[in-house]
Amino acid sequence: MEREAGSRFMPKFDASGLLTAVVVHAETGGVLMVAFMNEEAIALTRQTGKAHFWSRSRQAMWMKGESSGNVLSVREILVDCDQDALVLRCDPAGPTCHTGAESCFYRLLEDDALVRVNT
Amino acid sequence: MEREAGSRFMPKFDASGLLTAVVVHAETGGVLMVAFMNEEAIALTRQTGKAHFWSRSRQAMWMKGESSGNVLSVREILVDCDQDALVLRCDPAGPTCHTGAESCFYRLLEDDALVRVNT
Repeated sequence: MEREAGSRFMPKFDASGLLTAVVVHAETGGVLMVAFMNEEAIALTRQTGKAHFWSRSRQAMWMKGESSGNVLSVREILVDCDQDALVLRCDPAGPTCHTGAESCFYRLLEDDALVRVNT
Repeated sequence: MEREAGSRFMPKFDASGLLTAVVVHAETGGVLMVAFMNEEAIALTRQTGKAHFWSRSRQAMWMKGESSGNVLSVREILVDCDQDALVLRCDPAGPTCHTGAESCFYRLLEDDALVRVNT
């Protein structure tokens, strides 16, 4: 109840200590990527203003853009009702997807085929 | 490689058999909610055109709006590079959040306080 209605930040982590982060473009609102954050990733993101995530596959902290330079400057963080998901409103320094696409969501599902769309 | 560049839908589920679904408003693009889908939830969503999810807390399938009537009609599904996250572009029948808010992301994180914003 306090978690939903209150004004206190009480992030709810899953059994792996993670919550979901959705990165949206601060200007267009378009979804750029989805990743996971643990408590440390949230703290580092808030301290530095650059989005940090926890990689489930590598089991390691990473700053988005640490190798590519395409960092995400976080303008605002929105918290959902049960505090297990965040929306990061970001200004991206370059393409967000490691494939070079502006957004990781560059394909549309049509019947059983994925069709490339303009992102 | 095929998963990223190809045109075949090969959803990548985590150890619990789930992937992340981000619901956005088909008209405004705003993020409405985040939930999880297993293979059956994806199939039911595609068959019915209404968003279905897997509840981790209840360990049960649910159709969004099954009790409230606030169903989400799915207009398009976008798939991300590694196919472990989907964006559902939806037309909501009413407020998406169970609290009555249009979006579950109705609070902004400022310092350590959550501030209600206009959603």
